Amino acid sequence: MSARVSDPAADGETGAGPFERLLALVEDDLARVTGLIRERMSSEHASRIPEISAHLIEAGGKRLRPILTLAASRLCGYQGSDHIKLATTVEFIHTATLLHDDVVDESGKRRGRATANILWDNKSSVLVGDYLFARAFQLMVETGSLEVLRILSDASAVIAEGEVLQLTTAHDLSTDLARYDQVIRGKTAALFAAATEVGGVISDAEPQKVAALRTYGDGLGMAFQLADDLLDYGGSTAALGKNTGDDFREGKVTLPIILAHARGDQAARDFWTRTIARGKQEPGDLDQALAYLAETDALADARKAARGHADRALAALAQFPEGETRTALEDIAEFVVARAV
Amino acid sequence: MSARVSDPAADGETGAGPFERLLALVEDDLARVTGLIRERMSSEHASRIPEISAHLIEAGGKRLRPILTLAASRLCGYQGSDHIKLATTVEFIHTATLLHDDVVDESGKRRGRATANILWDNKSSVLVGDYLFARAFQLMVETGSLEVLRILSDASAVIAEGEVLQLTTAHDLSTDLARYDQVIRGKTAALFAAATEVGGVISDAEPQKVAALRTYGDGLGMAFQLADDLLDYGGSTAALGKNTGDDFREGKVTLPIILAHARGDQAARDFWTRTIARGKQEPGDLDQALAYLAETDALADARKAARGHADRALAALAQFPEGETRTALEDIAEFVVARAV
Repeated sequence: MSARVSDPAADGETGAGPFERLLALVEDDLARVTGLIRERMSSEHASRIPEISAHLIEAGGKRLRPILTLAASRLCGYQGSDHIKLATTVEFIHTATLLHDDVVDESGKRRGRATANILWDNKSSVLVGDYLFARAFQLMVETGSLEVLRILSDASAVIAEGEVLQLTTAHDLSTDLARYDQVIRGKTAALFAAATEVGGVISDAEPQKVAALRTYGDGLGMAFQLADDLLDYGGSTAALGKNTGDDFREGKVTLPIILAHARGDQAARDFWTRTIARGKQEPGDLDQALAYLAETDALADARKAARGHADRALAALAQFPEGETRTALEDIAEFVVARAV
Repeated sequence: MSARVSDPAADGETGAGPFERLLALVEDDLARVTGLIRERMSSEHASRIPEISAHLIEAGGKRLRPILTLAASRLCGYQGSDHIKLATTVEFIHTATLLHDDVVDESGKRRGRATANILWDNKSSVLVGDYLFARAFQLMVETGSLEVLRILSDASAVIAEGEVLQLTTAHDLSTDLARYDQVIRGKTAALFAAATEVGGVISDAEPQKVAALRTYGDGLGMAFQLADDLLDYGGSTAALGKNTGDDFREGKVTLPIILAHARGDQAARDFWTRTIARGKQEPGDLDQALAYLAETDALADARKAARGHADRALAALAQFPEGETRTALEDIAEFVVARAV
């Protein structure tokens, strides 16, 4: 499976993989999205805004989220041009959350480049994020769809709520599965689900198809984030743009840790308490953590959880006609899980 | 005029002043707004959100912005209940900008209390602000008015743009009047204008009345911020909740400084370059600054500018029928300028 180990939403090798096949279907639309992004992130008065947002938007992210909006509207046979505005909206909201996340995580790297808050400062990251968020809502207003505004303002609330919740789960070994689900839904799945759902909404698709697109996005996003959390205990730096063990060193309580802690003996629980809850780590601890994760089947069961979400995403697509768009969306769901194997 | 020196939007003495008379007209509605604020700032999953937002929302701000929305809809004879949602929206957007401003300014005090980012941390301030912003858009969606969404997403973009612009004007003595106007419009007038305009929009007021309400809010907001900038060179700590000379010490380039710098002789210009542009200040510099501001008529002319914006606000009200609401709104415009005399 090594040929598939690559992150569809971050820098990495290219090739005729499933992401590239999906991209090829919406390539012309995506070029229009790129043009609209450049046009709308500009500011008549504050030249610092496009400097900072361009840094992030042009940094080589693969634009998975706007591509999902374009593909969903294609799956519904949409003929208008509002999907361009909505895909741009989705990318602006994503970029705004990255900018705000850079501030909050004090992370030094994002997509392999220095983050905005290192190159500029916290102030600019917060305010440029706010600007992109406002521009996103302006674009939605232009589509004239209150339903789209409802879906994406709901998603924005879930995203912010999940991020706040994540602050309180770090180092907290009492984090349960429901809370972890809420965190990763806010972190990833809420925007994936909104991105695909609005593609159906502007296409005037039947309600059950709109619901299916939402389920697909949610399942794909949950699987994607579970895989991301898994890769932190096994992926290579090249594949993810971050180092194995980063989450461990930061004391993040992800599904593998929750499972290994719950299933461990007293020695294991003492180990997790010291390294994660108290954050006291020594050389060799990451290897010990990997050993505990393997012997408690924590990694295997986290993989099964990701597989379950991907299966939910695949089942939701079944009511759409067969064809290249549906196949490409199915392949992406498979790919997201496969990369974490 | 000393009895009038008080800030209508911040802590301070109360009494039967113009603010209290306006408040009395919408008191019942404001109680409903307070109830809705409490209901909507709660979070099912993240208890930290209401902790932080309540800290700011309950801190005793006088809620001038939501009161303006309530008064504007009252002036138009509005009979529905969407004005409660919109007033709550306006307060949420204001609170979100305060939370983000706390992060960016690294200020230690807001409304006389420690700011959220001291009591909690930068992370929480950013994310809780994002949450309130998302909740604000959800409330607008509930009103079903795309026009309201357009007005407040436009205002949000102007606010963020103005804040970014402000970052680049600090210590920059080449800041001109147009740029200063853009900064204070983003800082204050954009949300005032949107707050009054949406009151007219939900009332289905005629277009010229909606435009007049927008002009009133803009004029009031510009006058308010000009007065605020003036008070920093003459107000008392009790009246403003901040100390005379704070802007000077932070190197903020406000209208009084722009005028005094442009009109000063070589000695004066060297003084401003050292104290504002280079930020090198010594004991006695504030007194010297006040002397330069007085002898170049900078303070007097900044007061005239505030007066001009207030007059614009008053003129806009002329097309509404005379009555207690119009009178109260007129008195507030007078009051905002009078406090800076």
